[in-house]
Amino acid sequence: MSQSKTAISPRRDEDFSEWYQQVVRSADLAENSDVRGCMVIKPWGYGIWESMQRVLDRMFKETGHKNAYFPLFIPLSYMQKEADHVEGFAKECAVVTHHRLELDGEGKMRPAPSAKLTEPLVVRPTSETIIGATYAKWVQSYRDLPILINQWANVVRWEMRPRLFLRTAEFLWQEGHTAHETEAEAIEETEKMLGVYEQFAREYLAVPVFCGEKSEGERFPGAVKTLCIEAMVQDRKAIQAGTSHFLGQNFSRGSGIKFVSRNNTEEFAWTTSWGVSTRLIGTVIMAHADDDGMIVPPKIAPTHVVILPVTPKPESRDAVLAAAKELQKQLSSRPFSGGTVQVEVDQRDIGGGTKNWEWIKKGAPIRIEIGPRDLEKGSVALARRDQSPKEKQFLSMEEAVEQVPAILEAIQANLYEKALAYREANTVTIDSKEEFYAFFTAKNTEKPEIHGGFARAHWCGNPKCEEQIKTDLKVTIRCIPSDATAEKGACISCGNASPKRVILAKSY
Amino acid sequence: MSQSKTAISPRRDEDFSEWYQQVVRSADLAENSDVRGCMVIKPWGYGIWESMQRVLDRMFKETGHKNAYFPLFIPLSYMQKEADHVEGFAKECAVVTHHRLELDGEGKMRPAPSAKLTEPLVVRPTSETIIGATYAKWVQSYRDLPILINQWANVVRWEMRPRLFLRTAEFLWQEGHTAHETEAEAIEETEKMLGVYEQFAREYLAVPVFCGEKSEGERFPGAVKTLCIEAMVQDRKAIQAGTSHFLGQNFSRGSGIKFVSRNNTEEFAWTTSWGVSTRLIGTVIMAHADDDGMIVPPKIAPTHVVILPVTPKPESRDAVLAAAKELQKQLSSRPFSGGTVQVEVDQRDIGGGTKNWEWIKKGAPIRIEIGPRDLEKGSVALARRDQSPKEKQFLSMEEAVEQVPAILEAIQANLYEKALAYREANTVTIDSKEEFYAFFTAKNTEKPEIHGGFARAHWCGNPKCEEQIKTDLKVTIRCIPSDATAEKGACISCGNASPKRVILAKSY
Repeated sequence: MSQSKTAISPRRDEDFSEWYQQVVRSADLAENSDVRGCMVIKPWGYGIWESMQRVLDRMFKETGHKNAYFPLFIPLSYMQKEADHVEGFAKECAVVTHHRLELDGEGKMRPAPSAKLTEPLVVRPTSETIIGATYAKWVQSYRDLPILINQWANVVRWEMRPRLFLRTAEFLWQEGHTAHETEAEAIEETEKMLGVYEQFAREYLAVPVFCGEKSEGERFPGAVKTLCIEAMVQDRKAIQAGTSHFLGQNFSRGSGIKFVSRNNTEEFAWTTSWGVSTRLIGTVIMAHADDDGMIVPPKIAPTHVVILPVTPKPESRDAVLAAAKELQKQLSSRPFSGGTVQVEVDQRDIGGGTKNWEWIKKGAPIRIEIGPRDLEKGSVALARRDQSPKEKQFLSMEEAVEQVPAILEAIQANLYEKALAYREANTVTIDSKEEFYAFFTAKNTEKPEIHGGFARAHWCGNPKCEEQIKTDLKVTIRCIPSDATAEKGACISCGNASPKRVILAKSY
Repeated sequence: MSQSKTAISPRRDEDFSEWYQQVVRSADLAENSDVRGCMVIKPWGYGIWESMQRVLDRMFKETGHKNAYFPLFIPLSYMQKEADHVEGFAKECAVVTHHRLELDGEGKMRPAPSAKLTEPLVVRPTSETIIGATYAKWVQSYRDLPILINQWANVVRWEMRPRLFLRTAEFLWQEGHTAHETEAEAIEETEKMLGVYEQFAREYLAVPVFCGEKSEGERFPGAVKTLCIEAMVQDRKAIQAGTSHFLGQNFSRGSGIKFVSRNNTEEFAWTTSWGVSTRLIGTVIMAHADDDGMIVPPKIAPTHVVILPVTPKPESRDAVLAAAKELQKQLSSRPFSGGTVQVEVDQRDIGGGTKNWEWIKKGAPIRIEIGPRDLEKGSVALARRDQSPKEKQFLSMEEAVEQVPAILEAIQANLYEKALAYREANTVTIDSKEEFYAFFTAKNTEKPEIHGGFARAHWCGNPKCEEQIKTDLKVTIRCIPSDATAEKGACISCGNASPKRVILAKSY
């Protein structure tokens, strides 16, 4: 059977991992820098991050949060204030030990021995401890609560096996840190922010996610409860796309966030933290991209419509460019997703085919070609990134201007429907251990193979069973779903009684 | 003579430096963290930074730039690729030497000796070298130029005498980095971006600035030419508020940014870099704040109007709050500075006087009080931050909604006029050395005194004269003004011939 040639090689079904790298590269999203594990986020990739930031920032502010900024460096002793926390992060901390360079004897620079810090500084892997120390100063009375703050920042977690967007030594994220008077209020906040993430993933990233709680073994170091959103990507693995932690009083005890309560007693505050990162870009790529490259959901696309002027002859060039600019102007005033349609005219002096394929690979939602013949007919050729590269609609200029916002909405909805259908087709209910092990075992051991999916199965709650499954299959409990109904069953691993089903999968 | 009490103590004329700290503190803008030299930017201060970012980001995009993101860490060897550059920054570099923590024998964490980096990493003090290394990979042909990229980031320059916003070990900034085919194009870019900064300072910060070039001694390490904007603040000192550097081929030679030209020869690209930072917040404070606290120019205020409901009696409370909310709703739909009026209702359960003074100290442009008696009369009491705290206008609700945008414009214009008048009153033309030395010498040596200002004086161009003036008076050449006209004169220091006047001042 002949296979039509695709822009990305290998295809998803040939080698998903290599396909991913090639999509990132050919869409010009990011690249590895010379600094081990650190990436350069290129303008198209960063533009997607800016769109995500804009929406999330609005959602955080609508839920009463304000932004602030805390130090990049954390004194080593602060990290130790919460025992599980420092243990969880110790292995991936970048440590600053000197504050000056000097010439060695041979004309090379070195850290100046005389400028060694008395206390080393950790480059923040997350900011609970440094923010906790600050909140401790801000909070005296219950009147000072709640504190509802978010920070947009870079963080560093040393990675031994870095992968663009998914696992990088430095990444960009937002981290919300809140402090409350009561336990109930802090739990409500933890759940509310998970809800924000779920809505954001569904409405903007076009990615359906499961909401739930992590098992103890997968919890954030120092948290009482970690909630998460889990997405399925196109190799049927899970990706943790966002987390919201109820920290109880663990960090407020460590940092001394104390207040005089309404009853005039001294209490420790209840805190939460929640975050999403540039990992979301990796999630979107793996959820939506195809064998021709990236597909950016319209609501987070830096450019919604790319106009490609076709100028084969010098004599018609000016007229075509003028028409392209006019179309850009008119489209730019049309509303879309709380703003207006973002339009770019690609006038670069390169071949039309190359140009068209560049934008397919970058995943711009809509491409519109205008050439001399279109001008004569008063029409343009519109192509949707969620359809075959060969499929085109011929519309008059007026129709294009009129219809683009609805087409963008249709693409957004289509991407979501596709992702949802894929997830549903690959989420199975499993009751026997044999079936469970078969589901997660590749048939072809010679080359990477797409198999498995999400399994809804019973788990008794014993960490040993969780560990056994992980050791045998590299499968983990992704979450205990928030909407799980009570249902008696037998643990997929040991056969003991289980009160409800959990979601298990291989993951990134 | 009796002096009316002010909200900030000491006053500007008593101790400008301490006054500044008190304004920052009482306006809740920022505070020192426990990490030496690193600040916590609090929500009100960060809100001002977000406003600045929004405007600048739009201006950068309108001039053809896109955002991207480059690594936080720079390999030590990269810093050495430009000799002047590394020498200029060596003394203030934070250096990462380890990538893991481990327990020492006594239960404390320490950098793990086994995880020592082969090559230390510098936390970026600025990104010319790491970005240059990336551009070298991106550029092959003249067709790949220009590259017009900006980055919003944190940077670290170790500070021995930190001061909130003005000099902090970590600060937030933007750094534009561009690469061009020709020298002329790169110079044009350098000048264009200085123009953007000047316009931003004038129209948004309400701060008049002098544009010009730095003398060789004050140049950015590695630059061919450093252009700057210099503002005068209320102790008559200068503050460098933004810089734009023409880097020639210095960094492209170091990093290897080479391209095949139109003539098929191999050439080095011409690069520029330009930046402004959270230092601008310090500039705005010192330019506009008064003895009652901060004054935020409306165009960069996170909140334009604060509504203060006055609720002395429980029975009228609901009606007053409802009226406040209704006013907020109506005002929020009014246009201002490319967006809408931002309104906050302060419902906190604290005394009305305290609340009013909090907002005066924070510098919100407009405060509107609504109480039960106002409701009866159908009016509100509006106070402008650029007028005396006691001055109020009584307006009907409709008038308030109608007039607020114009009042905000008037406050913005008034702040600029005041700052300009102050600068003009304190910029003098000086021709004799005696007069020059007297101008910059305090009359009262017992306590800090506001004296001096900007001097337009002749300088022969000799670095030795510049050095002498700096040693004697702590006065530096702030810039060689872009609009300086040729005028023969005698150097203020040595008396030799000088072709034009420069601007000299003490500075931050």
